[in-house]
Amino acid sequence: MIQVGVVGYGTIGKRVADAVVAQRDMEIVGVAKTSPNFEAEAAVSKGFDLYAAIEERRELFDEAGIPVAGDLDDLVSTADVIVDATPSGIGAQNREVYEAHDTPAIYQGGEDADVADTSFNARANFEDAVGADHVRVVSCNTTGLSRLLAPLREEYGVEKSRVTLVRRGGDPGQTGRGPIDDILPDPVSLPSHHGPDVKTIFPDIDIDTLGLKVPATLMHMHSVNVTLESDADAEEVRELLAEESRLFLIPEYAGIDGAGKLKQFALDAGRSRGDIWENCIWGESIAVRGNDLYLFQAIHQESDVVPENVDAIRAITDSASKAESIATTNETLGMGLGRTFER
Amino acid sequence: MIQVGVVGYGTIGKRVADAVVAQRDMEIVGVAKTSPNFEAEAAVSKGFDLYAAIEERRELFDEAGIPVAGDLDDLVSTADVIVDATPSGIGAQNREVYEAHDTPAIYQGGEDADVADTSFNARANFEDAVGADHVRVVSCNTTGLSRLLAPLREEYGVEKSRVTLVRRGGDPGQTGRGPIDDILPDPVSLPSHHGPDVKTIFPDIDIDTLGLKVPATLMHMHSVNVTLESDADAEEVRELLAEESRLFLIPEYAGIDGAGKLKQFALDAGRSRGDIWENCIWGESIAVRGNDLYLFQAIHQESDVVPENVDAIRAITDSASKAESIATTNETLGMGLGRTFER
Repeated sequence: MIQVGVVGYGTIGKRVADAVVAQRDMEIVGVAKTSPNFEAEAAVSKGFDLYAAIEERRELFDEAGIPVAGDLDDLVSTADVIVDATPSGIGAQNREVYEAHDTPAIYQGGEDADVADTSFNARANFEDAVGADHVRVVSCNTTGLSRLLAPLREEYGVEKSRVTLVRRGGDPGQTGRGPIDDILPDPVSLPSHHGPDVKTIFPDIDIDTLGLKVPATLMHMHSVNVTLESDADAEEVRELLAEESRLFLIPEYAGIDGAGKLKQFALDAGRSRGDIWENCIWGESIAVRGNDLYLFQAIHQESDVVPENVDAIRAITDSASKAESIATTNETLGMGLGRTFER
Repeated sequence: MIQVGVVGYGTIGKRVADAVVAQRDMEIVGVAKTSPNFEAEAAVSKGFDLYAAIEERRELFDEAGIPVAGDLDDLVSTADVIVDATPSGIGAQNREVYEAHDTPAIYQGGEDADVADTSFNARANFEDAVGADHVRVVSCNTTGLSRLLAPLREEYGVEKSRVTLVRRGGDPGQTGRGPIDDILPDPVSLPSHHGPDVKTIFPDIDIDTLGLKVPATLMHMHSVNVTLESDADAEEVRELLAEESRLFLIPEYAGIDGAGKLKQFALDAGRSRGDIWENCIWGESIAVRGNDLYLFQAIHQESDVVPENVDAIRAITDSASKAESIATTNETLGMGLGRTFER
């Protein structure tokens, strides 16, 4: 059993911990947190050993009456592998702790690419992370783009991709964020960081990305254009994408018009926290005009990287092949929202 | 003096009426409305003769104590030209009344293109409307795209344009519209109507448009890509666009991050209702990568067609040249938000 430590038990960390629990070949040895908040309470309730991520703040846990098993050093020395899901920039600071213990570590997309030996997306470049010491799972949006571009590159070749990312202003719990009634170019200058980030997965791809922020919390939305290198028709592309295990093609008759209904559907399906690990692509939106492919996809910013983190754990510990890991992760989590619509 | 009748005194109609009042060569002979609501009260306060757009509803005005000068027939027979600013589809129904009186009429972009002899954008095809009987001013978004594409076509040639329109869900007064916390592909299937609508202005242009709806009320936002036929650099494009009288290039130091600040700026500048007749283009967003030009522009859905309606009045009555009309409209309205930033 791979002993996994999760450092940072917030939006991503708590989901990765639950996903690890669902696996047969790994288990959680502990989770580290900076504050004794509602998520710390939840971690204890789930039976996870809780570690104080910052030693000086350990007494806050004592005051709150939340039992602490040790500090960050203790957790790292116990773990075979660390998943660092701390806020952007903290992972880079923590890296020296992981190095001191010679414990391989997985970082999130908020870190700069150079925090790690390789950036990672299971579908696109699993092998690059095999046996690495430091691996960075790319952000939710880059994950969504990589999953989509991988099969298109293989089947048609990608001449150029142009994507407008209409981003949710903040997660449902990020109550201090905006905008409230506006549409903000963000960043105003091109490119947004997403294009360069996709290049950490596909170094030779030609991609321009533009970002906007809007008053929504549930999911990001991508307006995707891909100029293909060879001929395609929409139905063919639809079939190609439908075969990808982490792409959910929304059927027209489903009556799903946006993120609100997608989340309802995920909750109705019994998904923990209403999580949607799959890219959600509107089947009818797939159109080909000349060599230009277009489509809309929604990306659940809180959860689509979760299966990628599980696969990264297997890659970094060299404990399963790409195909085995993806199949196991998919099966244990219950991937495949689209199966509901299969007859 | 051209005698102008305005049929439909809502979002567009009331603004066109005010803009006509500001001209030296035309005046309002009356405005027609279906309901005695707050806008009818405002029309009377401004001294406009009010006509009942639907005869059967005339008694509602009597009951409200709002004086009515006559019905639609009376207004049309008195006017030299009608600006029909009724809700989508009503203009097509009214057309037979205008024809019966042989009164030339201007329709809005909500009508199908075949309601008129030509669709109209002053910058792009003023001459097509000269002496026509029925002219359709294209919608706010198509107006914004036409103004932008006209100089790019002339200077560089347009190989292809791809635009994602992130649309406000409703105007500030449209309290029944959504979404509240979502990002909706709208329409899900390509193309949105905007691409074909731009072709009513530039029949030979290659343009694909994708539409989304978001929880915002103030302005639309366009994420624009134009593949140019000849070489360009960003600074050159910036200079080209800055010379266009109805394009406002937002300077970086202005600190304008979205529609909220644009509206504040327009209100501070004393613009009636905070209207923004110009396309608002973020100067820093203008980028050229290879032959691909990118930029963000915000479009004020309630007002950018207003100067176009004034120019359409001159075109349909053949009373001024394109250059004269645009110059007069600009001067009388006070076009040019960007002048504030000129030293």
